[in-house]
Amino acid sequence: MTTTSRNEDTSELDRDPAFAMHRGGKLHVTGSVDVSDHEGLSLAYTPGVARVCDAIAENVDLVETYTWKSNLVAVVTDGTAVLGLGNIGPEASLPVMEGKALLFKQFADVDSVPIALNCTDADEIVETVARMAPSFGGINLEDISAPRCFEIEAKLRERLDIPVFHDDQHGTAIVTVAALHNAARLTGRTLGDLRAVVSGAGAAGVAVTKMLIDGGIGDIAVADSKGMIYEGRDGLTPIKRDLAAISNKAGLQGSIESALEGADVFIGLSAGEVPESVVATMAKDAIIFAMANPNPEVHPDIAHKYASVVATGRSDFPNQINNVLAFPGVFRGAFDVRASDITENMKLAAARAIADLVGDDLSADYVIPSTFDERVVPAVSAAVAEQARKDGVARI
Amino acid sequence: MTTTSRNEDTSELDRDPAFAMHRGGKLHVTGSVDVSDHEGLSLAYTPGVARVCDAIAENVDLVETYTWKSNLVAVVTDGTAVLGLGNIGPEASLPVMEGKALLFKQFADVDSVPIALNCTDADEIVETVARMAPSFGGINLEDISAPRCFEIEAKLRERLDIPVFHDDQHGTAIVTVAALHNAARLTGRTLGDLRAVVSGAGAAGVAVTKMLIDGGIGDIAVADSKGMIYEGRDGLTPIKRDLAAISNKAGLQGSIESALEGADVFIGLSAGEVPESVVATMAKDAIIFAMANPNPEVHPDIAHKYASVVATGRSDFPNQINNVLAFPGVFRGAFDVRASDITENMKLAAARAIADLVGDDLSADYVIPSTFDERVVPAVSAAVAEQARKDGVARI
Repeated sequence: MTTTSRNEDTSELDRDPAFAMHRGGKLHVTGSVDVSDHEGLSLAYTPGVARVCDAIAENVDLVETYTWKSNLVAVVTDGTAVLGLGNIGPEASLPVMEGKALLFKQFADVDSVPIALNCTDADEIVETVARMAPSFGGINLEDISAPRCFEIEAKLRERLDIPVFHDDQHGTAIVTVAALHNAARLTGRTLGDLRAVVSGAGAAGVAVTKMLIDGGIGDIAVADSKGMIYEGRDGLTPIKRDLAAISNKAGLQGSIESALEGADVFIGLSAGEVPESVVATMAKDAIIFAMANPNPEVHPDIAHKYASVVATGRSDFPNQINNVLAFPGVFRGAFDVRASDITENMKLAAARAIADLVGDDLSADYVIPSTFDERVVPAVSAAVAEQARKDGVARI
Repeated sequence: MTTTSRNEDTSELDRDPAFAMHRGGKLHVTGSVDVSDHEGLSLAYTPGVARVCDAIAENVDLVETYTWKSNLVAVVTDGTAVLGLGNIGPEASLPVMEGKALLFKQFADVDSVPIALNCTDADEIVETVARMAPSFGGINLEDISAPRCFEIEAKLRERLDIPVFHDDQHGTAIVTVAALHNAARLTGRTLGDLRAVVSGAGAAGVAVTKMLIDGGIGDIAVADSKGMIYEGRDGLTPIKRDLAAISNKAGLQGSIESALEGADVFIGLSAGEVPESVVATMAKDAIIFAMANPNPEVHPDIAHKYASVVATGRSDFPNQINNVLAFPGVFRGAFDVRASDITENMKLAAARAIADLVGDDLSADYVIPSTFDERVVPAVSAAVAEQARKDGVARI
């Protein structure tokens, strides 16, 4: 337990290199022009700046060319579902949001700014983000708890003409679909041959399931804390009712354990542990993506006893399902063509691009590129930009 | 008139060096730590970042030490009163806000982010800024039209425990008071010896008047477009009613021209031209601050015929009254002691610090330091920080 007052010495905390690295924060705003003399000042500020303002007032599209807006993402959170830490509030979420901004910059030269809000009402969040939208080229929603995250994203996409992307949903979905596509290929199958069971009906579980349905998976069913989600189950939230209508063609009811019997794929997005005895009942050539952090739902050592392909969310095992493979390139590609939206097709294009990079090197330990594979962002951004043009949402 | 479509070639515009400098915007977000390998990523992002988040969740004050919040200003506008351009909207205001952020960084190493809002209702602006306040260490309100700017600033100061500063008011007031103090000294007087007339009852006019009253000016009266503001004048707004109650002890009524007869000081903050015949009626050793941009209310060549000291807002004449002398150092000082507010005393301390730098070099052409005088920010920030401690608003 950390108990320091404002003036207390925090040097003890800094013995942890994570704290030492965070001292003073991880971000800075820097200028790309010089205002250290009268000439620079008179161009970048008054009186020169007035001519640029006038031009934008006359033709608002010029804001994309003459300000940083078109390369700038707001990383928006309310701090309610931060990593595995839960509802820790806006201030405590800031180090994660700064980290996200670092990744945007380092991986894809996208500028971004953490905006941590102290309101949690969905309509208030929508209204707040919509009001500040003139300053930004895109909105990355982050660590907002379900089911509000779905409503917030849907309303903002409806209302704004800039990309809105909830990374916990779509980043995870893109990378999971890419990995599953390759896992199927390795075992001589396509998505259409697979029956999958998803543990967790939060942001990631819902988005992964929808994207796999869009991608043509054979069947997929989702479990929440009360067991399998099926049409007609009592007390379903609207989101889960929608999910029930499009998933679980087999109509599985009861526990996730019984649903996993004979299943081809397990996708863990919940932290609920799955016993070895249940894993043992899955189909031949099972695929296990146990993505809970830091403790996978099935430990890879156990999973490998029964499965042909195993992936986790951790960097210390092969096949890390890491959102950083997706979101930097997705926004880079969207920004490169000034897309007004990130369509479902663009997300699928991103997943395909990630999967394709693996190519002939495909193996059980390599169904997804490494986090630091420098081919990823160019490939994803090119695929996303091309699909944006096809979908008619590109503006240049 | 600029008329380009989204895809139109803007190279013609870029022949103007101001446009060329603005291409792509003037700001970037950069990281201060490296996440290009697994070790860096595991400290700056998961899993290391979770320990920092946990610590802040436990003790929210640690957000000041381990994020960039405590050095970060939101430059907030609604685009309703931008430079001399008026209500040009949030997008067209962005180049000015980016310029402000550049100045914050270059002059005082303060990070800042433009937040241009597409709402103009005072309560909506207050609510929006209050919701995003967890992300920021301070709020600089900019180019919001009067009288809403007064209400917005007052409500935000009441509601937030971080500095809120409307630069159009207080930045202008600080520098004007500093210059007037020295102009009085040059002519063997103190503020208490002076009777001043202010042209303009907008953000700057109101703030300059209040600060000069706090600073002990002999008498000061303000004119708006209907003439002098006095107690009991019909149809005064609440702000002007308050102003009438504390200013214009002499009870001047009628036109600004008649009020200027025998006045010691003219402070122009309105762009309304003052004829030479009126300037000629001012008292001996008159002081003329004609700060409208780009056209001073009285041209310096005319003013010098009648006045002992002349100042403008322009860099091509001596004695430039430029807010950049104030706001970078004010926020630097407030941040250095994590001040919860910027008090009136702190603003007066900033004015005194600026005035004192002139010292023995005082002359009719040098009543205020140059924009690029490197002594200014250290002097202002030290004075502001010291006064914050005295006023009990310093937190470290």
